[in-house]
Amino acid sequence: MTVPADVVADLSEDELIASFLPLLPRGGRTLVPNGDDAAVVAAPDGRFCVSTDVLVAGHHFRLDWSSGADVGWRAAMQNLSDIAGMGAEPTAMVVALVLPPATPVAWLHDFCRGMGEACAPLGVGVDGGDLSAGEQLVVAVTVHGDLGGRAPVLRSGARPGDVVAHSGRLGRSAAGYALLASGRRGGADEELITDFLRPRPALAAGPAAARAGASAMMDVSDGLLRDGRRLARASGVVLELGPLEETVPGAVAQVADAAARLGVEPVDWLLSGGEDHGMLATFPAGTTLPDGFVALGRVSAPTAELPAGTVTVAGAVPDVTPGWDHFRP
Amino acid sequence: MTVPADVVADLSEDELIASFLPLLPRGGRTLVPNGDDAAVVAAPDGRFCVSTDVLVAGHHFRLDWSSGADVGWRAAMQNLSDIAGMGAEPTAMVVALVLPPATPVAWLHDFCRGMGEACAPLGVGVDGGDLSAGEQLVVAVTVHGDLGGRAPVLRSGARPGDVVAHSGRLGRSAAGYALLASGRRGGADEELITDFLRPRPALAAGPAAARAGASAMMDVSDGLLRDGRRLARASGVVLELGPLEETVPGAVAQVADAAARLGVEPVDWLLSGGEDHGMLATFPAGTTLPDGFVALGRVSAPTAELPAGTVTVAGAVPDVTPGWDHFRP
Repeated sequence: MTVPADVVADLSEDELIASFLPLLPRGGRTLVPNGDDAAVVAAPDGRFCVSTDVLVAGHHFRLDWSSGADVGWRAAMQNLSDIAGMGAEPTAMVVALVLPPATPVAWLHDFCRGMGEACAPLGVGVDGGDLSAGEQLVVAVTVHGDLGGRAPVLRSGARPGDVVAHSGRLGRSAAGYALLASGRRGGADEELITDFLRPRPALAAGPAAARAGASAMMDVSDGLLRDGRRLARASGVVLELGPLEETVPGAVAQVADAAARLGVEPVDWLLSGGEDHGMLATFPAGTTLPDGFVALGRVSAPTAELPAGTVTVAGAVPDVTPGWDHFRP
Repeated sequence: MTVPADVVADLSEDELIASFLPLLPRGGRTLVPNGDDAAVVAAPDGRFCVSTDVLVAGHHFRLDWSSGADVGWRAAMQNLSDIAGMGAEPTAMVVALVLPPATPVAWLHDFCRGMGEACAPLGVGVDGGDLSAGEQLVVAVTVHGDLGGRAPVLRSGARPGDVVAHSGRLGRSAAGYALLASGRRGGADEELITDFLRPRPALAAGPAAARAGASAMMDVSDGLLRDGRRLARASGVVLELGPLEETVPGAVAQVADAAARLGVEPVDWLLSGGEDHGMLATFPAGTTLPDGFVALGRVSAPTAELPAGTVTVAGAVPDVTPGWDHFRP
């Protein structure tokens, strides 16, 4: 940058864009990059997946907890995870940013580096964007993916008799959040906090599940219970999960110490904690589960007592707050 | 809706989404609509265009001037225009919304109807979205387009000797904005105000220009002068425009009365006013301009006096504020 500038209001929109464009990765599928009215991206099988997710400062992240790079990483990863949830590979994203005028230019550059750290290793380009001033920092990412000729794996394909399985982390992000909120940090807990600040979705698990014949899938962004109910409702089925202490004992053990310190049931974090972005999928009985997937239970037909959309755990409907809702805290 | 609700905070995110989904159009290219982790859209020529634009209440629209439907229309149209600016046809969009908790549910539904009014006649789907609570209303739209096998028309292709041409409105949105800001409404001015509140981009002109062999193109969102400079800079050329009173006398005449009442030079609105979303294109000399395009001048090589990126009008570099900048008012 040739213009010395501390905050974004010191620069024009064109100067700002010129200052951070070199920090953004160009993807392997990018045909026309940033700089025109639109980018052009290859879609070799004649289709593309598209999903959008918005993050608002104070709602989805706290500027005193997350660095700019953390926010960029998170914004990228939670979007990339939606592509994996379809069984697709991510190809390109665009980013709209609303920045308070006092936002440090260094924060913006750090944000771009965080997006790049998430996208570049995957060959995903950050191929377009828009900037506006505003009162509150908002990041809106739209991500695209390629199905590689496969059918998309929808939420609606689960059938009675299927196996319910999961790949990725469970409860770690919720634990990290609770630790930060409580002010208790240090020692072994740092890894949980890092998992909250820098989520690592099970991106490879999505296409792997599709190739293995998954009947339904979604990424777990709002908690196993809440997202499981969405999948069950879309499929018109019930998900009957076994006790998590038996199916994913390692995940329970990893958060047990932190849970004990905070007086929380560790299983509650696994059931209601969002933002770990694992893949929840169902497979026809007898399918060899892809690497990383663990069977959690089975799909059953709805009944008068257990209507479609129900998730049971160890035979009961859990009495746990079912995850994050942006409009009902 | 079965849930009586006045403001969005009365509903859960799932309830809100269920209440407005039926108001959004499904597009002709939509393979998997709303409801999964991602939508799937057809890209028959193996590529797609993508662009994103963000609108912030108080910056891009005023809630006391624009209805929800006006905001939805504007958000859709200014995005659709970016697709036309590449010479492509729009196919699908996704929308991320940040809503203050006190936003009336009726406003949100009105917004969806406005988006639908803009998109449905074009066969464009609103195929995905995300919602969050926040302090300030923000609309982030990402739009996709199909090039129909043609090369995209970039900003960088203008060559000395090319004709500079424009299709669509010029200065009308700026006039409407100035009239609203001045509090003077009524009579003939209502049409100008409507053109500000409900911009009508030259969407068909984009693909028509591409088919006619346009060498460069962009949509005029930030003013003829500012966007002309961007095209000239990207192409490494100078745009020499004739007097607008001679090239587009009708456009000057249409805003002359309002300009006189407000004590403004009408040509200044044509040069610096954005958001009319006409198409600015260059064509090799001798090209028969497509219907609707009017020649404004010609492309010349840069010189020591007139470096690349310069726009002249009637032989001079205009002394006019060169249009909207979000970070420098």
